[in-house]
Amino acid sequence: MDDSLMLMIPGPTPVPDPVLLAMAKPTIGHRSGDFSLIMKEVTENLKWLHQTQNDVLIVAGSGTSAMEAGIINFLSAGDRVLVGSNGKFGDRWAKVAKAYNLEVEVISTEWGQPLDPEPFREKLEADTEKQIKAVIITHSETSTGVLNDLETINRYVKTHGEALIMVDAVTSLGAISVPIDEWGLDVVASGSQKGYMIPPGLGFVSVSAKAWDAYETATLPKFYLDLGMYRKTAAKNSNPFTPPVNLFYGLQVALQMLKDEGLENIFSRHQRSKTAIREAVKALNLPTFASDDAASPAVTAVAPDRVDTEQIRSTMRKQFNIALAGGQDHLKGKIFRVGHLGFVGDRDILTCISALEATLQILGDTGFTPGAGVTAAAKVLG
Amino acid sequence: MDDSLMLMIPGPTPVPDPVLLAMAKPTIGHRSGDFSLIMKEVTENLKWLHQTQNDVLIVAGSGTSAMEAGIINFLSAGDRVLVGSNGKFGDRWAKVAKAYNLEVEVISTEWGQPLDPEPFREKLEADTEKQIKAVIITHSETSTGVLNDLETINRYVKTHGEALIMVDAVTSLGAISVPIDEWGLDVVASGSQKGYMIPPGLGFVSVSAKAWDAYETATLPKFYLDLGMYRKTAAKNSNPFTPPVNLFYGLQVALQMLKDEGLENIFSRHQRSKTAIREAVKALNLPTFASDDAASPAVTAVAPDRVDTEQIRSTMRKQFNIALAGGQDHLKGKIFRVGHLGFVGDRDILTCISALEATLQILGDTGFTPGAGVTAAAKVLG
Repeated sequence: MDDSLMLMIPGPTPVPDPVLLAMAKPTIGHRSGDFSLIMKEVTENLKWLHQTQNDVLIVAGSGTSAMEAGIINFLSAGDRVLVGSNGKFGDRWAKVAKAYNLEVEVISTEWGQPLDPEPFREKLEADTEKQIKAVIITHSETSTGVLNDLETINRYVKTHGEALIMVDAVTSLGAISVPIDEWGLDVVASGSQKGYMIPPGLGFVSVSAKAWDAYETATLPKFYLDLGMYRKTAAKNSNPFTPPVNLFYGLQVALQMLKDEGLENIFSRHQRSKTAIREAVKALNLPTFASDDAASPAVTAVAPDRVDTEQIRSTMRKQFNIALAGGQDHLKGKIFRVGHLGFVGDRDILTCISALEATLQILGDTGFTPGAGVTAAAKVLG
Repeated sequence: MDDSLMLMIPGPTPVPDPVLLAMAKPTIGHRSGDFSLIMKEVTENLKWLHQTQNDVLIVAGSGTSAMEAGIINFLSAGDRVLVGSNGKFGDRWAKVAKAYNLEVEVISTEWGQPLDPEPFREKLEADTEKQIKAVIITHSETSTGVLNDLETINRYVKTHGEALIMVDAVTSLGAISVPIDEWGLDVVASGSQKGYMIPPGLGFVSVSAKAWDAYETATLPKFYLDLGMYRKTAAKNSNPFTPPVNLFYGLQVALQMLKDEGLENIFSRHQRSKTAIREAVKALNLPTFASDDAASPAVTAVAPDRVDTEQIRSTMRKQFNIALAGGQDHLKGKIFRVGHLGFVGDRDILTCISALEATLQILGDTGFTPGAGVTAAAKVLG
């Protein structure tokens, strides 16, 4: 017998059965009154989840499409932008910015370390002529399990006054508070297969009034990802292009589940999961890749020094049907990553830790006290 | 009791139950071996449906995203292109081309008429310096129910020798033969919610070797829709960005159903449906908007002169729960459109015609002989 697959990767995340079943409902026309009602409801609930009165627009595409839309709609070729990079996704936004001929200045930190806010402060303060048009930051860096200090960097952007703050919140939104209105975040992008608990295929972008002002004079070419069209149609509970109707069915159910749980409960659940995983991993004498004070609420990277990461992943998969993620790019084989984002509860965390312990035993590892991981996790969850 | 909704619109089209149920399967990781197998299978079957050995790439997005990708990957700002326009979608591709600063020459015909191939021939013949880089054609114009003479226009493009032919086959692919390799079509774009019988959310683009040559020197900015990345990852049965996993489940099942039916049967079914609808409509003394020799295999536009189109649509919807499409832009209120694309069989055609007859009776129309529509349809289907 095969157990059902348990996704403990940072996306796609596990999808609740009611969401899966909702997606099996017959497709309806996207210009119908019935679909408009769905569009209205999910847009309102997205604003609730985003803690914002800004527009929250829905794009058919991956998280990358949403982030690209967030970048290209508000800028023109030659615009100077600061891009923070300490992982695969920070690197990606630098690539997008360069592909669109922006003048890109990358402020990077070693993978596994959080971005240092200081160079952002220095560059923004030195820019008295206000030539920096945007600062682009990955909030939770999925490739390393690092949470960047968005609040501090954003404060410097606000002091600068001109630059827009653009945030990849793909694995932070719905896992930790991203108070868009309170912090004045201009552009915040995310994707459905993460905290939203639905399969991949939808991207979300919230856009501030200040960003819409910039849109008016921005000249980068765009059509499918032209957010002005999405804004115009969203006001009529519609879409500029045919939306993925069945994914909207899933989104509708998932957002209702999230509302039922409540923002504070969602955030504290992710905080608890993160802490339980980290404490358990440490109790198993396995080093975490990111430090506690810069730990992502969505994904924990582990850098085992005595057992091969790919053997761990393969045994977890084959014996227990639990999928863990590997390292990306130069971290391949150096770390494995445990996703604890979205529809993941206490039982899942405990299951994952006990399977990890069993896996280490099966692999002949003697570097830990059997039971230590589960005990440490139980202490946090209890 | 409400009947289940019957979609007789040109997209989204009806989705077979096995496809809907497949989409309710638990989401798996898109970097897993299991997903690679799905990617491999659907890519092979897409090539079969496209009748091509060219790359057929899958983009998460609408049909527009696929068509935009098809245009922007192979051209540079200032490139001269001819765009055929005789409806909403032809207009759209002209807008895309202009948004990306191409030098656009629109060759238009009145909505409801097919494009005249002559001006294409003239312009291509006159272009001895080979400055025309692409000819962009909508095959089946969804907004009017007109099928353009792609074969003839393409022949002139081939004689020119330099220009690429780029085709919006969104409502022709899977309904009528689009022999990509035989005709040498360079770029052909389509969308999942049409002949593919799955919900919206996936776009498809086939790309010829000649187009890939043009890609090498094309400089329009792109990232999410950069098809070079899709080509590279498709060779490894993977995707550059997180694909909509559950829509792929649906695609896998739908393509298998299409293979089981066979290309010739699929095309003759659509031909039969089209003819039955047209003959029935004519027997009801309702004018079709497009002429027989330029009739789309996917959608028939009807321009009633004695009964209000919106009353017809509303009664069909309320009384029989059959959705018909209205006219778009300046055709609003002037035509209604019957979709007969994808998972639509003889019974559906007959149902739709009998409901249309009943609707006319309910609306007090006396301009037709009761039973004439069903009789005419039966003659074609028999």
